Amino acid sequence: MKTIGIITPGGDAPGMNAAIRAVVRIAHSRNCKILGFEKGWYGLLTESKKHLTPRAVGGIVQSGGTMLHTLRCLPFKTKEGIEKAANTLKSNNIEALIVIGGDGSFRGATELGTKSGIQMIGIPATIDNDVFGTDETIGFDTAANTAIGAIDKIRDTAISHERIFVVEVMGRKRGFLALHVGIGVGAEVILIPEQGYDIKKIVQVLNTNSKKGKQTAIIVAAEGVGDTGELAKEIAKHTGSEVRLSILGYAQRGGSPSGRSRLLASLFAEKAVDLMCNAQGNYIVGLTNGKIASIPMNQSIGAQKSIDPNMIQLAKQLSI
Amino acid sequence: MKTIGIITPGGDAPGMNAAIRAVVRIAHSRNCKILGFEKGWYGLLTESKKHLTPRAVGGIVQSGGTMLHTLRCLPFKTKEGIEKAANTLKSNNIEALIVIGGDGSFRGATELGTKSGIQMIGIPATIDNDVFGTDETIGFDTAANTAIGAIDKIRDTAISHERIFVVEVMGRKRGFLALHVGIGVGAEVILIPEQGYDIKKIVQVLNTNSKKGKQTAIIVAAEGVGDTGELAKEIAKHTGSEVRLSILGYAQRGGSPSGRSRLLASLFAEKAVDLMCNAQGNYIVGLTNGKIASIPMNQSIGAQKSIDPNMIQLAKQLSI
Amino acid sequence: MKTIGIITPGGDAPGMNAAIRAVVRIAHSRNCKILGFEKGWYGLLTESKKHLTPRAVGGIVQSGGTMLHTLRCLPFKTKEGIEKAANTLKSNNIEALIVIGGDGSFRGATELGTKSGIQMIGIPATIDNDVFGTDETIGFDTAANTAIGAIDKIRDTAISHERIFVVEVMGRKRGFLALHVGIGVGAEVILIPEQGYDIKKIVQVLNTNSKKGKQTAIIVAAEGVGDTGELAKEIAKHTGSEVRLSILGYAQRGGSPSGRSRLLASLFAEKAVDLMCNAQGNYIVGLTNGKIASIPMNQSIGAQKSIDPNMIQLAKQLSI
Amino acid sequence: MKTIGIITPGGDAPGMNAAIRAVVRIAHSRNCKILGFEKGWYGLLTESKKHLTPRAVGGIVQSGGTMLHTLRCLPFKTKEGIEKAANTLKSNNIEALIVIGGDGSFRGATELGTKSGIQMIGIPATIDNDVFGTDETIGFDTAANTAIGAIDKIRDTAISHERIFVVEVMGRKRGFLALHVGIGVGAEVILIPEQGYDIKKIVQVLNTNSKKGKQTAIIVAAEGVGDTGELAKEIAKHTGSEVRLSILGYAQRGGSPSGRSRLLASLFAEKAVDLMCNAQGNYIVGLTNGKIASIPMNQSIGAQKSIDPNMIQLAKQLSI
Repeated sequence: MKTIGIITPGGDAPGMNAAIRAVVRIAHSRNCKILGFEKGWYGLLTESKKHLTPRAVGGIVQSGGTMLHTLRCLPFKTKEGIEKAANTLKSNNIEALIVIGGDGSFRGATELGTKSGIQMIGIPATIDNDVFGTDETIGFDTAANTAIGAIDKIRDTAISHERIFVVEVMGRKRGFLALHVGIGVGAEVILIPEQGYDIKKIVQVLNTNSKKGKQTAIIVAAEGVGDTGELAKEIAKHTGSEVRLSILGYAQRGGSPSGRSRLLASLFAEKAVDLMCNAQGNYIVGLTNGKIASIPMNQSIGAQKSIDPNMIQLAKQLSI
Repeated sequence: MKTIGIITPGGDAPGMNAAIRAVVRIAHSRNCKILGFEKGWYGLLTESKKHLTPRAVGGIVQSGGTMLHTLRCLPFKTKEGIEKAANTLKSNNIEALIVIGGDGSFRGATELGTKSGIQMIGIPATIDNDVFGTDETIGFDTAANTAIGAIDKIRDTAISHERIFVVEVMGRKRGFLALHVGIGVGAEVILIPEQGYDIKKIVQVLNTNSKKGKQTAIIVAAEGVGDTGELAKEIAKHTGSEVRLSILGYAQRGGSPSGRSRLLASLFAEKAVDLMCNAQGNYIVGLTNGKIASIPMNQSIGAQKSIDPNMIQLAKQLSI
Repeated sequence: MKTIGIITPGGDAPGMNAAIRAVVRIAHSRNCKILGFEKGWYGLLTESKKHLTPRAVGGIVQSGGTMLHTLRCLPFKTKEGIEKAANTLKSNNIEALIVIGGDGSFRGATELGTKSGIQMIGIPATIDNDVFGTDETIGFDTAANTAIGAIDKIRDTAISHERIFVVEVMGRKRGFLALHVGIGVGAEVILIPEQGYDIKKIVQVLNTNSKKGKQTAIIVAAEGVGDTGELAKEIAKHTGSEVRLSILGYAQRGGSPSGRSRLLASLFAEKAVDLMCNAQGNYIVGLTNGKIASIPMNQSIGAQKSIDPNMIQLAKQLSI
Repeated sequence: MKTIGIITPGGDAPGMNAAIRAVVRIAHSRNCKILGFEKGWYGLLTESKKHLTPRAVGGIVQSGGTMLHTLRCLPFKTKEGIEKAANTLKSNNIEALIVIGGDGSFRGATELGTKSGIQMIGIPATIDNDVFGTDETIGFDTAANTAIGAIDKIRDTAISHERIFVVEVMGRKRGFLALHVGIGVGAEVILIPEQGYDIKKIVQVLNTNSKKGKQTAIIVAAEGVGDTGELAKEIAKHTGSEVRLSILGYAQRGGSPSGRSRLLASLFAEKAVDLMCNAQGNYIVGLTNGKIASIPMNQSIGAQKSIDPNMIQLAKQLSI
């Protein structure tokens, strides 16, 4: 019987629990013992762990967050930290570690894999959808639905008051969420970190809309585009309209996962266990061209996923 | 046949449309003609109005915002503005004006009633629940559910990361929403404008909890308590923990009304039409001791509704 | 230190967990030890119990169902069953038992109280809202919102297809839920067990609406009115329209409690602990005239709560 | 300037309005005039139509149902009906007709295209996801989330009462929805029309679970598997357990579309307008291997989409 480890070392995302459940149950049916390390990398430094049976992961498919908890762990990022973590894996006879998280988690895993020689398998789970090697990450669909639901409510007030709203969605570096949400709510303007923005062009869109009789506007901005409070003030100054700011914040990170996030979690988990059983190096699983696939982990962390420029064009056409 | 006017001159709240629908249909069945004035007081200055038939208000019971729109209208607050509004009412043969909104709307209505001699009936609708003369306003229950739903999601992340969250809910002057929401989510600390706060006491609660093994905390703060960003920083400094801030924002104001907000809207509307038919001075309708009731409008605007101190005590007992 | 028991012996309702949590924490702060009996009366027969500390009830305020579980327990209803249950209470030094449930649960509690001489305090929790002595039960508001949310969706299809829908909501004997939900969704017809119905009158309403250009109709029927499938067929026959049936079913019983159900749970729990500390006979707590109150348990089980006839009239006026 | 028609002739699905909006706005930007035919094929027989401008489709991206309405139209299925419809298209100078719906709608469109010689473009929208030529239809993701949300609630009661629930989801002929939903909720058994079922095997799964300490079970059954009421009785008889039935019904067809359904609607619309501009025969658009694509309409209606057998296996592994 093989022993495998599982860990969620980065920010939480809805569907992580569904992924943990699926890994545990599928691996169990293939005769593996599963150890869950708690509080992320910190659990490897402190040997905070628990044996995960199929029963132990019952009733979590629908819950947000991560039952394994997570913690920012600066000591892990030192040479001594990595060594200690590697030793924990070895002393527990871990033959493979399944790492559920985003780019940062996979960077840590790569270092740990190099140090320990133990196989690392990554399952991409982050609401930012910014992992190279998969078209979609666990949690992205849920976060998009949460943000869209909130903005649908905001639009009620926007229309009632004929106001302009700047709505900041999560995404420090990447605009996948903002773009998806912006199209979903029919945003008049979508701002993403990959593009920057020109205040004059925004004002021009708003003025053109105003002439067409459309006084209300929703501007969806990823947090990475800069100070949205300043942006709102600038727009107010240039249009003479009342502009309000709403920062959707952490609610986007939690909540019960959508059907799609749960399904993706289950499919990714199955693939991860397959790869683990075949023991061929370090990989991340993912969705590519509509199919479950995998790419080497170092390819994933070394590359940047690109935004589909057609989506940006489409968003503009839809909000006329 | 009597002609009555209806108007939503303040901020929008979920259930306003249900109230408009109910007023129109009930008044229609009592042989009244109903004119809706659009964009709040501004509609009285510009005679922006529409005839509202029972058919015209179909399909809106479940929608957020206000179909009559609303606008901040500074000119109304001048002597000339009030006069113009009074003239509009007279030239349209309005015998009574039903005003759906909060305290500010009722102040405007009182001035307009004095000037015009036309009967004013107020239907309290605001998510702040800060209208004297009613235990609950239309929209309050919906906003509370929206905020609670968002904080339930935030708690997923709070627990996963064992973090402290400061969550700002609406309420510039009053803490009804914060208190209700805080009890609903099981907040460890609730801060309301009526009380102010002592950072030392907050830290003491958090430290006591921490010793009991409760690392996560949700602090629900009404926006009126001060700068919540500063508060979060102060708490981080004094506890040594990571603290995150989330400002729930405008989503609390919109969305499909809850069953209770829809019911309250319908019951308030019925009472408003009753009062209007009896034509006895200016009143606001409300919920008092579990029954639909009314008080003179000038009593409502002249007094301040008090927070139930037992609720504050209860909240503390529940979060141990 | 006093020992008190807590039990949920009937059907579950959203907010029961919030009530358990509140009882445990408030009673703890008054120096009581709390034993939870599991699976309803069955737990008293088998001594299935657990000690409930304030920590043990953390993280449940937002969860549906009952953490104490419940079970239909026929043996309890025998003389031997009641005796065994009474003995369990005595051997565990239970000084008072807090019973969370509906009318049936309070009947059982009354028998058990008589047999054992131990104080029984009832907290009304049922989605049916059919407990005499309280204007509202825990879970009712949540169930109403769930049903309203579902019917809002059904109306999309009803309008798109210009169809008539019969929607059956829970309520075998009483129509509180159907009436509240019917007003909330703007139902064209509401059928409750207290009234029976005349198919001709329903058809007349639908035909009148049809002449006014309103082809779509929602008929909300409590399950207790009879065979809704037959009803739908009858309406189809008499109107010549397509009629669809939807039985909302068990989803109404579960889910995260609304803010109001959580608050009511907390306030009821506080009152229950107060009564328990004063040890004055058997009571149920409740909401009366907007205030938390109590009445003797035998008064509650001996009487029937009445439907407000004004609400029925109002519903008719609103759906013209 | 080209004139194109748009129609929703089958059952409604969430996201149809988002698709109508997207078609209208994208086609407008390519200098087309758009006529919407109302009430499905019936609108072609009666020339019930309206000119759709970009403004006319504002504020509908988030709404369920179809703003164009739909109606079962038996006369269309006659030779005379098709001829009349073809004449309507010609007399209105329609150069292409965009048909939003499922398999049945595309069969009608194919006949109409043959008769009229006018280009037909199909946009697949049905909650059943049973259109050959696309991996996903508009509305499927929304319906899955609605069903999953309802079953998450039902599971609260299932767990509280340790009961078995049979939950019937939509799907008369195909099991895509049942399978997706079943995996999403972690169903113990999933029954789809493509497979039939053996009551002995179901009972065996339930008994095995029971021995593992899992008394609760959710059986998700597509409506097409047969009489679910009978099934529930059979299971009760063979297991000796209490079994409850819940038929989710029409709520699955309505409601605000999910982000994914809105995005799919927008992308499909863009492709449909592209195909229409190129005027190359009759096609349906779709999602294939993660990309927006198209296949000839007669290929789509002549073939049956297959269920992924791996998904069925996965569901079994996940529910141990």
